[in-house]
Amino acid sequence: MAAPSEGALRRSLAERQAAADAQAEAVRALKAGGGASKADVDAAVEALKALKVEAGAAARRLQQALGAGAGGAAREELRQAVVNTLERKLFYIPSFKIYRGVAGLYDYGPPGCRVKANVLSFWRQHFVLEENMLEVDCPCVTPEVVLKASGHVEKFTDLMVKDEKTGTCYRADHLLKDFCKEKLEKDLALPKEKADEFKRILAILDDFSAEELGAKIKEYGIVAPDTKNPLSDPYPFNLMFQTSIGPTGLSVGYMRPETAQGIFVNFKDLYYYNGQKLPFAAAQIGQAFRNEISPRQGLLRVREFTLAEIEHFVDPEDKSHPKFVDVADLEFLMFPRELQLSGESAKLMKLGEAVSKGTVNNETLGYFIGRVYLFLTCLGIDKGRLRFRQHLPNEMAHYAADCWDAEIECSYGWIECVGIADRSAYDLKAHTEKSGVPLVAHEKFSKPREVEKLVIVPSKKDLGLAFKGNQKMVLEALEAMSEKEAFEMKAELETKGETNFKVCTLGKYVVITKKMNQEFDAAAKVIAKALTTAGISHIIDTTAISIGRRYARTDEIGVPFAVTVDSATNVTIRERDSKEQIRVDINEVASVVKQLTEGQSTWADVSAKYPAHVGPQGDQE
Amino acid sequence: MAAPSEGALRRSLAERQAAADAQAEAVRALKAGGGASKADVDAAVEALKALKVEAGAAARRLQQALGAGAGGAAREELRQAVVNTLERKLFYIPSFKIYRGVAGLYDYGPPGCRVKANVLSFWRQHFVLEENMLEVDCPCVTPEVVLKASGHVEKFTDLMVKDEKTGTCYRADHLLKDFCKEKLEKDLALPKEKADEFKRILAILDDFSAEELGAKIKEYGIVAPDTKNPLSDPYPFNLMFQTSIGPTGLSVGYMRPETAQGIFVNFKDLYYYNGQKLPFAAAQIGQAFRNEISPRQGLLRVREFTLAEIEHFVDPEDKSHPKFVDVADLEFLMFPRELQLSGESAKLMKLGEAVSKGTVNNETLGYFIGRVYLFLTCLGIDKGRLRFRQHLPNEMAHYAADCWDAEIECSYGWIECVGIADRSAYDLKAHTEKSGVPLVAHEKFSKPREVEKLVIVPSKKDLGLAFKGNQKMVLEALEAMSEKEAFEMKAELETKGETNFKVCTLGKYVVITKKMNQEFDAAAKVIAKALTTAGISHIIDTTAISIGRRYARTDEIGVPFAVTVDSATNVTIRERDSKEQIRVDINEVASVVKQLTEGQSTWADVSAKYPAHVGPQGDQE
Repeated sequence: MAAPSEGALRRSLAERQAAADAQAEAVRALKAGGGASKADVDAAVEALKALKVEAGAAARRLQQALGAGAGGAAREELRQAVVNTLERKLFYIPSFKIYRGVAGLYDYGPPGCRVKANVLSFWRQHFVLEENMLEVDCPCVTPEVVLKASGHVEKFTDLMVKDEKTGTCYRADHLLKDFCKEKLEKDLALPKEKADEFKRILAILDDFSAEELGAKIKEYGIVAPDTKNPLSDPYPFNLMFQTSIGPTGLSVGYMRPETAQGIFVNFKDLYYYNGQKLPFAAAQIGQAFRNEISPRQGLLRVREFTLAEIEHFVDPEDKSHPKFVDVADLEFLMFPRELQLSGESAKLMKLGEAVSKGTVNNETLGYFIGRVYLFLTCLGIDKGRLRFRQHLPNEMAHYAADCWDAEIECSYGWIECVGIADRSAYDLKAHTEKSGVPLVAHEKFSKPREVEKLVIVPSKKDLGLAFKGNQKMVLEALEAMSEKEAFEMKAELETKGETNFKVCTLGKYVVITKKMNQEFDAAAKVIAKALTTAGISHIIDTTAISIGRRYARTDEIGVPFAVTVDSATNVTIRERDSKEQIRVDINEVASVVKQLTEGQSTWADVSAKYPAHVGPQGDQE
Repeated sequence: MAAPSEGALRRSLAERQAAADAQAEAVRALKAGGGASKADVDAAVEALKALKVEAGAAARRLQQALGAGAGGAAREELRQAVVNTLERKLFYIPSFKIYRGVAGLYDYGPPGCRVKANVLSFWRQHFVLEENMLEVDCPCVTPEVVLKASGHVEKFTDLMVKDEKTGTCYRADHLLKDFCKEKLEKDLALPKEKADEFKRILAILDDFSAEELGAKIKEYGIVAPDTKNPLSDPYPFNLMFQTSIGPTGLSVGYMRPETAQGIFVNFKDLYYYNGQKLPFAAAQIGQAFRNEISPRQGLLRVREFTLAEIEHFVDPEDKSHPKFVDVADLEFLMFPRELQLSGESAKLMKLGEAVSKGTVNNETLGYFIGRVYLFLTCLGIDKGRLRFRQHLPNEMAHYAADCWDAEIECSYGWIECVGIADRSAYDLKAHTEKSGVPLVAHEKFSKPREVEKLVIVPSKKDLGLAFKGNQKMVLEALEAMSEKEAFEMKAELETKGETNFKVCTLGKYVVITKKMNQEFDAAAKVIAKALTTAGISHIIDTTAISIGRRYARTDEIGVPFAVTVDSATNVTIRERDSKEQIRVDINEVASVVKQLTEGQSTWADVSAKYPAHVGPQGDQE
């Protein structure tokens, strides 16, 4: 049997309370009249007692239901125990404690630092390395023009009220929220209609204007919680810490409230860095600052924190994701808009179905939801206390077109931990307008990508079988092709399976088949996966230029080891400084490179162990 | 033959120039007089030409000498080539470039981020892990009271002058420095006395008061470099970015100019965390902010940067360091005060000799100089371009009692990269005074440390040989000893080599020898070293409590694996979650733990491979 609803319990309590009140009135009347017999009075008093017991029981049932729903005392106790341990063991410390601290600022002590470092290191491994993201590191101090363009100067505000006598500041929505919650949890005599009203307010609170909030605060007679003084009308307070850059005092700056803007203003450079191809992602880990009006809930709402952000730039007309299949079968708690609006709970859904049904808008958004799910559960988050909740239309940040939050249920209830927003091109457009620098990607560059993969990995075995002594010259001619020639060859291979190719040094045409150029993709992927697992950053370079020039390119930026896949079973590893190469089985590549980079073995060690290879040296550019 | 000094070259140039001037005057006189023969005039003109050639040659010699000394054009060219490559490859990017940037703020692009992450990761490994330092992570936003106590609000200033018409700001010392350098490098006619004066100014510039700087700027007629407008008198400008914490606008805050204050204000908690023992070190990596008046020299003088700091707290009466022997034989360029004051160059010195002669004040300071030398040379810094320069007394920061800078010679000259300062107890005293919370260490706790090491690592083998079936009970009794009893036992073992010990559960006294408790220190150190090399954070716990309670203690803070050294050849590894233990050869411990923590093998894998061990479970506390 289902438990009675909160409404039914409230009604039951109200009826029993009313009956008890009526009986109490009756007892008073009997006594006052003086004509009633003692037996009549006694019977009426007994009936009153029974009604009071019933009302008491109804109150307890309601209280129990409310207590279970809101978490109650057990939750509060658990939190206190955890907080005590964490503070005692210096996982975190209220900052500047000897000066009685500053609300919303916390230090991490030694074990907290370790946990934080482990989480960030896993984040880098899981997101940045796995997807070959471009990591950037921008300053916290940000000039006003950037945050005007992004909308933060105008819109990054919370509504604030002041104690009219002491000047103490409060977040207006928090006061109204606390009032409604307190009433719902503790006022057992609350009529059902009033309870419903408070619940509706809690659901739509985030959407209230300053005027609406002010009106409700007045209507309910809400006062300053500490002093019971009257409150000012709500007005917006910008959450950014303001400062002044340079010595003149004329240049306004802010401490960044998010790290993403540093990525957006660099879009053009990053796009070029990525070979002018979409999609690509950039990532940043760094401090963010929000001058919260009245920080609370411990580490959950603080004035300075480390943020790890990813901006994934995708062709707006093709939001498919090649790796979506890897996460499509994941099943977890999802809480789309419709369920929230109809008052239902989150339910288990398969990610693949959520995307195919349109609940999640597209594969790319879905892919990142899946990756975040894997990240959080790998960190140890209980699957039963993790849900992905879609923002209601009115609730989203000023830049978002769609947004899903990963929420974790903790002692404070369901708390947002990760936001996955489709910001559309809001930021790039805003900065383009403000700076006059066009932050756009050109579609024509997005297609040739696949072609390059084909042409630059010639299959030496097949070429060898086909061309024998001439293999070297065919190979050189293939590597010397222009991008345009490569694209043309790709098109012909795709349609016909083979193509005629003129090798000038041989003075004749040869037949190139599709098979010759393709078979090492798989080997490269095996190696890439092993390197990712080993935590080694790498890029598969499949551009249509010679091996030698590719070596020169990576030599310039200091990449210590280059792996060339010219066989499906064993490959070459080249050391930058000596330009020497060795041949290594593909299954050993990752461990050899890891040992070298971690200093467990030297290049001399491995070149003694593995056979040398003579190939392009990488001198030419 | 030694090259002529700059002074000799200046004298030679001045003499030849004077001779040429005199001859020119003579020619003019001959021509004006009208009585001289054409042959006389021609001869005088020829002599003038010869003198001019000589003067020109002298000027070239001087210019060459100055060019080589100051770096010259080749250096400038090299720098430009390196900068171009670094910017083109996005190692770094001027921040907010699309908005024409902000002086002194730079982004790191993808390869720059990798380099930075590698350097920081090596720093953690080399310093924090190697020395078991306590890492903390404090906010950048800092309330005024902290920085008033530390002296930064009053003293963290540079002297500034303003263009009197445009208001553009300049660092006063930089203008004077540039003026003197320019004169020395480019004014070939500069008399030797004047050159000596400018050199003296360059040497003592850092010590000038506002009045002295202002007087020199007036005396030399230095004007604003961009406009040639007159300059204001110098006045102090505080380099901290100021902001306001919280919504009232009443609480002044600053962005921290160094991370060290976050460590000092936590001294008390960290000291307790370290078992109230000195010495210990705390470390912090994080952003620091300095609102430079006019940033220049690319990444060398910026307004926001990542700082990695260590504060090592040591008994002021015993600054010896047990690991100093490990670095005493290092030999590198040192530049103590005396050499600087006598105008000599840095010279190769052995660190051990520098400490024993008192050039470096004490072993602890020397140890860190040695560790910094190893860190920088491991990173690839050229030993010939690295020197340790001692600060002159007048040059040190307001908090420092002695200071050595690691300086690297780059295209800008010798640049400070690491500062190693003996801050004495300046900061702890200042915060004690301001906060009223005593930040002190008590000497009585610094001695018992060694005792604990003895008592809590009983040698099971020796105990087993001696006590056979009773070993377990002896062991339990040893572990159950109070600290006081342990200290008493230690004293007796030290003097007599053995002691009588009452085991209640056996109802008798047994003889404990010194050997039984000591031999595993070496094994623990071997394991610790291997773990450090593998990059695994660990602490050797030698406190005088039972193994079970020690497990409970590490379980509480989430340490996943505990190694108990109860044999010199093989030890136990215990997993926190299952409480299971396995026996592993000491040489395999680090690699087993590394594989487990990196997810290459699971606990199930290793427990299938290694024999199980039954011992204290760690339930009891």
